[in-house]
Amino acid sequence: MSRILTGIQSSGRPHLGNILGAIKPAITLSEQPDNDSFFFIADLHSLTTIKDGALRREYIRAVASAWLAFGLDTTKNTFWRQSHVPEHTELAWYLNCFTPFPMLANAHSFKDKAERLSDVNAGLFTYPCLMAADILLYDADIVPVGKDQKQHVEMTRDMASAVNNQAGEEIFVLPESKIDERIMTIPGIDGQKMSKSYNNYIDIFQPANDLYKVIKKIVSDSTPLEEPKNPDTDITFKLYALLANEDQVNTMRQNYLNGGYGYGHAKKELYELIIDQFSGPRERFTFYMENNNELEKELRIGEEKARAVASKTIERVRTKLGYN
Amino acid sequence: MSRILTGIQSSGRPHLGNILGAIKPAITLSEQPDNDSFFFIADLHSLTTIKDGALRREYIRAVASAWLAFGLDTTKNTFWRQSHVPEHTELAWYLNCFTPFPMLANAHSFKDKAERLSDVNAGLFTYPCLMAADILLYDADIVPVGKDQKQHVEMTRDMASAVNNQAGEEIFVLPESKIDERIMTIPGIDGQKMSKSYNNYIDIFQPANDLYKVIKKIVSDSTPLEEPKNPDTDITFKLYALLANEDQVNTMRQNYLNGGYGYGHAKKELYELIIDQFSGPRERFTFYMENNNELEKELRIGEEKARAVASKTIERVRTKLGYN
Repeated sequence: MSRILTGIQSSGRPHLGNILGAIKPAITLSEQPDNDSFFFIADLHSLTTIKDGALRREYIRAVASAWLAFGLDTTKNTFWRQSHVPEHTELAWYLNCFTPFPMLANAHSFKDKAERLSDVNAGLFTYPCLMAADILLYDADIVPVGKDQKQHVEMTRDMASAVNNQAGEEIFVLPESKIDERIMTIPGIDGQKMSKSYNNYIDIFQPANDLYKVIKKIVSDSTPLEEPKNPDTDITFKLYALLANEDQVNTMRQNYLNGGYGYGHAKKELYELIIDQFSGPRERFTFYMENNNELEKELRIGEEKARAVASKTIERVRTKLGYN
Repeated sequence: MSRILTGIQSSGRPHLGNILGAIKPAITLSEQPDNDSFFFIADLHSLTTIKDGALRREYIRAVASAWLAFGLDTTKNTFWRQSHVPEHTELAWYLNCFTPFPMLANAHSFKDKAERLSDVNAGLFTYPCLMAADILLYDADIVPVGKDQKQHVEMTRDMASAVNNQAGEEIFVLPESKIDERIMTIPGIDGQKMSKSYNNYIDIFQPANDLYKVIKKIVSDSTPLEEPKNPDTDITFKLYALLANEDQVNTMRQNYLNGGYGYGHAKKELYELIIDQFSGPRERFTFYMENNNELEKELRIGEEKARAVASKTIERVRTKLGYN
């Protein structure tokens, strides 16, 4: 049985792109009986860019509620907030001391962020040590990551090897990264990749009226209503095709090709499909957002399970490094 | 009442230089009724330079035993191991995210270490964030430091201000550094400053025979036994003068000036004075080194007291940053 560890960013409310591209596929994978899945909300990492406490609290709750809303099973899997397991920052310190300064200075992601961001803080610099702690604490075998994170898993292996060599034994499992080629890029309402930073996302959890307003803003060309339209270049059609079943997709395609069917009609159908298809998740999301005690209950199940694993790993490390 | 916080290095067994220059004056200060003294063994910091676990364990025990041997009162004061209070590394992470990268890159002590040491690790680089956490967790008013550490207290104030500004309230107390001008430089057996790194130290806790052997190695000039000698340039006399009472010092001074009194005689008197004056601490040191349970009992008193303070501070921080 492979242990698969996934870090979940908490730097915003999950949108349709996150749901189709990450949340749903990860949950499907976690349902396989031979997968032992660990999911953590990387809320400590979010401090490198978000300083506002109220915003962080809202995002953490929204992220947790979204994963639960899409059916993540907190008893089969382990689902927790990084900030609620103190072993993460403890191990991060130990790993800092086993990480050559130039390794961090030369990391692609730091160089990139140092160029783009105005707040270049030490947390951005030592981020790979905290990420390595996240992975190594749980003896993860496989870490599914985007291409930009592959180097961080390599660095994790280097840090783990440095400690294993010092200890003269296998303190840490060396993780493998797995680039998830299936990860879909979901188009935003302007046709670029759906992303919070482009402000082109669809938040399926918002009230129905607001949701419809956003869908109406999806960019389309100016072909008149009565003329035939090209479904393969239209954003509304692309989004519909990602959600609808084959019959529905074929019907809409035919409508586009026939003419006499406007983008407004397509947007209405997309809106109705979202409301219909996501009625369960929308209801559950609202439930968790409005009932913090219930959310905490689910998260505490995971925190206990996570700490049981993390505390064993940290004991191995402390014993070898002379801290107990 | 001022809260005074002192970090104790654990990168070696305390020698006579540490005892006269740091341990005894600090304990004397801590006995004043209006001082609320916090002493922690900086064993997490030691990982930046020491990787061997057995060595670290030995040093931590020796340092703790030495402070107890010289009478540190663990009920009046708070005395703990940094590694046993997880709030230190947690707060260090938060502070990393409030510390501009260039502030750490320009720190004198990092530049100096980066030039001298072969293992330039990320822990050396982020050391000031952990040190700031050590200080800020306990709302320390005053931090007595050597001149080389003054900049680190300035950085601590900068980090504290950054968090206070973000929070819009006084989350952290801004500490003041206090350069202890009274700190004596104790000469080693070669006349240079007594230091582990010069290998010129006197370990007063070692068996009497070994201690005598080291004292016999104190460097002296080649003035023959019968001739008068200059006490003011002789290392044995200087060490004796640091320990003996006025009468004893005057007598030895006269012996030097009279002639017919050899360096061997002076060394024997120094040896006997050490054995006599430190008989209590030597006995207590051995007791704690041989009875680890008793040592742990004393340290646990401090750990409970330290956590009671640290957990309150970290709750303030977590609330403001959105982690609870």
